[in-house]
Amino acid sequence: MDSMTLIAIASIVTAGLTIAMGSIGPALGEGRAVATALSSLAQQPDSAATITRTLFVGLAMIESIAIYCFVVSMILLFANPFWNHVIAQVAGK
Amino acid sequence: MDSMTLIAIASIVTAGLTIAMGSIGPALGEGRAVATALSSLAQQPDSAATITRTLFVGLAMIESIAIYCFVVSMILLFANPFWNHVIAQVAGK
Amino acid sequence: MDSMTLIAIASIVTAGLTIAMGSIGPALGEGRAVATALSSLAQQPDSAATITRTLFVGLAMIESIAIYCFVVSMILLFANPFWNHVIAQVAGK
Amino acid sequence: MDSMTLIAIASIVTAGLTIAMGSIGPALGEGRAVATALSSLAQQPDSAATITRTLFVGLAMIESIAIYCFVVSMILLFANPFWNHVIAQVAGK
Amino acid sequence: MDSMTLIAIASIVTAGLTIAMGSIGPALGEGRAVATALSSLAQQPDSAATITRTLFVGLAMIESIAIYCFVVSMILLFANPFWNHVIAQVAGK
Amino acid sequence: MDSMTLIAIASIVTAGLTIAMGSIGPALGEGRAVATALSSLAQQPDSAATITRTLFVGLAMIESIAIYCFVVSMILLFANPFWNHVIAQVAGK
Amino acid sequence: MDSMTLIAIASIVTAGLTIAMGSIGPALGEGRAVATALSSLAQQPDSAATITRTLFVGLAMIESIAIYCFVVSMILLFANPFWNHVIAQVAGK
Amino acid sequence: MDSMTLIAIASIVTAGLTIAMGSIGPALGEGRAVATALSSLAQQPDSAATITRTLFVGLAMIESIAIYCFVVSMILLFANPFWNHVIAQVAGK
Amino acid sequence: MDSMTLIAIASIVTAGLTIAMGSIGPALGEGRAVATALSSLAQQPDSAATITRTLFVGLAMIESIAIYCFVVSMILLFANPFWNHVIAQVAGK
Amino acid sequence: MDSMTLIAIASIVTAGLTIAMGSIGPALGEGRAVATALSSLAQQPDSAATITRTLFVGLAMIESIAIYCFVVSMILLFANPFWNHVIAQVAGK
Amino acid sequence: MDSMTLIAIASIVTAGLTIAMGSIGPALGEGRAVATALSSLAQQPDSAATITRTLFVGLAMIESIAIYCFVVSMILLFANPFWNHVIAQVAGK
Amino acid sequence: MDSMTLIAIASIVTAGLTIAMGSIGPALGEGRAVATALSSLAQQPDSAATITRTLFVGLAMIESIAIYCFVVSMILLFANPFWNHVIAQVAGK
Amino acid sequence: MDSMTLIAIASIVTAGLTIAMGSIGPALGEGRAVATALSSLAQQPDSAATITRTLFVGLAMIESIAIYCFVVSMILLFANPFWNHVIAQVAGK
Amino acid sequence: MDSMTLIAIASIVTAGLTIAMGSIGPALGEGRAVATALSSLAQQPDSAATITRTLFVGLAMIESIAIYCFVVSMILLFANPFWNHVIAQVAGK
Repeated sequence: MDSMTLIAIASIVTAGLTIAMGSIGPALGEGRAVATALSSLAQQPDSAATITRTLFVGLAMIESIAIYCFVVSMILLFANPFWNHVIAQVAGK
Repeated sequence: MDSMTLIAIASIVTAGLTIAMGSIGPALGEGRAVATALSSLAQQPDSAATITRTLFVGLAMIESIAIYCFVVSMILLFANPFWNHVIAQVAGK
Repeated sequence: MDSMTLIAIASIVTAGLTIAMGSIGPALGEGRAVATALSSLAQQPDSAATITRTLFVGLAMIESIAIYCFVVSMILLFANPFWNHVIAQVAGK
Repeated sequence: MDSMTLIAIASIVTAGLTIAMGSIGPALGEGRAVATALSSLAQQPDSAATITRTLFVGLAMIESIAIYCFVVSMILLFANPFWNHVIAQVAGK
Repeated sequence: MDSMTLIAIASIVTAGLTIAMGSIGPALGEGRAVATALSSLAQQPDSAATITRTLFVGLAMIESIAIYCFVVSMILLFANPFWNHVIAQVAGK
Repeated sequence: MDSMTLIAIASIVTAGLTIAMGSIGPALGEGRAVATALSSLAQQPDSAATITRTLFVGLAMIESIAIYCFVVSMILLFANPFWNHVIAQVAGK
Repeated sequence: MDSMTLIAIASIVTAGLTIAMGSIGPALGEGRAVATALSSLAQQPDSAATITRTLFVGLAMIESIAIYCFVVSMILLFANPFWNHVIAQVAGK
Repeated sequence: MDSMTLIAIASIVTAGLTIAMGSIGPALGEGRAVATALSSLAQQPDSAATITRTLFVGLAMIESIAIYCFVVSMILLFANPFWNHVIAQVAGK
Repeated sequence: MDSMTLIAIASIVTAGLTIAMGSIGPALGEGRAVATALSSLAQQPDSAATITRTLFVGLAMIESIAIYCFVVSMILLFANPFWNHVIAQVAGK
Repeated sequence: MDSMTLIAIASIVTAGLTIAMGSIGPALGEGRAVATALSSLAQQPDSAATITRTLFVGLAMIESIAIYCFVVSMILLFANPFWNHVIAQVAGK
Repeated sequence: MDSMTLIAIASIVTAGLTIAMGSIGPALGEGRAVATALSSLAQQPDSAATITRTLFVGLAMIESIAIYCFVVSMILLFANPFWNHVIAQVAGK
Repeated sequence: MDSMTLIAIASIVTAGLTIAMGSIGPALGEGRAVATALSSLAQQPDSAATITRTLFVGLAMIESIAIYCFVVSMILLFANPFWNHVIAQVAGK
Repeated sequence: MDSMTLIAIASIVTAGLTIAMGSIGPALGEGRAVATALSSLAQQPDSAATITRTLFVGLAMIESIAIYCFVVSMILLFANPFWNHVIAQVAGK
Repeated sequence: MDSMTLIAIASIVTAGLTIAMGSIGPALGEGRAVATALSSLAQQPDSAATITRTLFVGLAMIESIAIYCFVVSMILLFANPFWNHVIAQVAGK
């Protein structure tokens, strides 16, 4: 049962750190994009449509990077192939 | 009972660190977005509606990254699959 | 009784570090938002109402991130599910 | 008595580090807010009332984050639930 | 079975850290590119087509770096050659 | 007597580090506030009264954060509840 | 079999860290190049052809550095000379 | 005698680090304050009296934070309550 | 056979870290050079030939530093003198 | 004699690190103050007397922080109370 | 044979880290020099000859620092005096 | 003789690190002071005498901090009281 | 023979790290000097002779610091007094 | 002979690190001073004599700090008092 515990601990710690570290870059990048969008809107209100559309495409691409981290974190918690292998092995023993 | 304790400790420490580290990026990003919104409002008061609307969409997207961290932290505390497995195993023993 | 002590120590250390690390980002972000609000007020005193309202919404969203950390910290101190489990186990022994 | 000592040490170290680390962000944030308030006052002396009022609301919100850290630090020193549990256990033994 | 556990743990931890660390650079780089695109749009609305096209090519190249990290992370989780070798060895034993 | 020594060492080290780390943020924040006050005075000598009054309120709030650290440091040295408990225990033995 | 496991672990960890660390520099560098290209396009729309051509050459050279890291990472996973040597040795035993 | 040595070592190391780390913030803060005072004097020589007075009040408040560190450092070297307790205990043995 | 394994591990880890760390500087340097080239082209389109030529010479020199790291990394993987010595020694045994 | 050696080592290391770390802040702070003094002199040569006097007061206050570190370093080397106690104890044995 | 292995490992790791760490400074320095050369060319196309000549001399001097690191790295791999001594000793045994 | 060796090692390492770390702050501070002096001379050649004099006083004060570190380093190498005590003790044994 | 190996390893590692760390400062410093020289040439082509001469003197002084590191690195590899002593001792045994 | 080896290793490592770390500050400081000298020469070619003279005095003072580190490094390699003591002791044994 020792090997199961070790894999569980590694999964817990990695799942948390992955989303925690993976939130720093996207959050700062989105903050910067939104900030520039706002000052661009103030500077050129007429082209609000183009600016908003480009902003949403950009936010979507940056958010996708945060989603990668969230997906890996969820896989480690709920669809961990290594954990499943060990559980199957223990059950079949 | 040793394996249960180790998983509990890993969950406690990771739950705390996940939300703690995950708060740095979003807070700084939101601070930047709000700051630019305010200076844009001062510069172009006429387009306050557009600026405020764009700000709220942006804040929502940045906040969502902080929410990911909070969700992982809550899962580790209250719906931890590894902990549940170990508890079930101990109970069924 | 060893396992109880270890969980207690992990909870104490994590509770402290969570709110300590979680205070850095929100405090800096709020400081930036407040600073820009003040310089915007000085630049455009006429739109003080809009600026103040937007500032309070922004501060509320940033503060919410600090509150997440505080909530996790309080849960670890006063409603720790792992601690409760161990206490129940010891009491029922 | 060993388990009591370990919890005491963890509480002491965490209490100190919590307020020490938790002072960095709020102090820098308040310094920034006060600094901008002063340069705004110099730039627009007529709206001193609005600036000062907004500054105090902002400082209060930033200070609240430092207070969270102080509260956790005091709880760990004087109302530590884990310490109380261990003391009760030792006394009732 | 010990060697299998160690490889599993190394794969879990590395898979998480790879995408977590690999998200910082691309997210910041994309944030910067999007931000400049927005301020360029505000400055020169007439050449929106060229700016948007160049932005998307640039985002694609930066995103490709994040994809490399995601691919390595997925390989380590679901197509790990070292894990497959060990599993085959254990099965064939 | 070992447990007493360990608590003494933890108290000494934490007392020192608390005030040492806690001095960085407030000192930098106050330095920034004072610096801006001086350049504001040079820019707008007429409103010296308002600037000075606001500066002192701000310095008081920043100083209060440094005082929190100093208070915790003093409590750890001269009114340490854990140390008192251990001393009482040793004396009553 | 121990030596095989150790080499496998070292390869897994290094493959992940190589592409993870190797993504920071190129992503930031490309973000900067794309950002300047966009602001140059806004400033001088007439020379869009030259700017775009130079941008693509530059991106190709920066991307090549990221590719070096990806190649080393792939070699470590799928064409690792040390792993092949150990496998051959084990098979020939 | 071992416990005495350990407390002595902890006191020596902490006394040094406290004043060493505690000197960074105040020195940088005072340097900034003095620097701005000088450029303000060059810009507005007429209000030299107000600037100098405000500078000295500010320097006094920043210096007070350095003094806190120095006081704790001196207490640890010459009025250490834990050391006194241990010495008394050894003497009274 | 232990000595062979250790050298293999050291070679794997060093080969990866060398190109990973060695990619940060050149990528940032090239990004800066390309960025300035683009803004120079926008500013002075007439001297595009000189700017492009100088850019390529500069990129070649910066790339050469990245190539040094790649060469050392390849030597460690495929022409490692220490590994060859150990292999020869083992074969000749 | 072991306890004497340990205290000697701790004193040596702490004495060096105290003045080494304590030199960073004051040196940077003084460099900044002197630099601004020079540019102020160039800008307003007429008020050289006031600027020089204020500079010397400021340098004296910053230098005093470096002196605190030097004093603690010297106390640890030549008037170390803990060392004296141990020496006396050894001599009186 | 143990001593030979240890020296081989130290040589491998140091050879890689030397060129990896040694690439950061020169690459950034050259990037800065090339960037300024390009913006100078755009600003003053007439003195292209002087600027290019000075740039090449400067790049040569910065590159020489990277070459020092590469030379030490090559010496450690292919002309390592300590390795040669140990090999000779082993052969002559 | 072991205690002598340990004190010697601590003295060697501390002597080197003290002057190495102690050179960073003063060198940067002096570089800044000299740089501003030069640009001030270029801006106001008439007051060269005052600028040069103030520069030398400032450099002397910053250099004094580096000298403190050098003095402590020399004391540790050639007039180390702890080393002298141990040597005397060994000789008198 | 153990003592010889340890000194060899320490020499290898230190020789590499000395030149690796010692290349960062000079390379950045030279890059800055060359960059300013180029922009000065573009700004004032008439005084190219003075600028170039001063640049070469400055580069020589900065390069001299890198040479110090290279010299120490070479001494450690090829004229190491401690290694020579040990070799002599082993040979004369 | 063990004590001799340890002192040799400590001397080798410290000698290298002292000059390596000690090169960062002076190199950056000199780079800044030279850079400002060049831009001052371009701005005010008439006062080239004063600028060059002040530059050389400044470079000499900054270089002196690097020389302190080099001197300590050389003392540790070739005139190490602790090494001499140990050698004498071993020889006289």
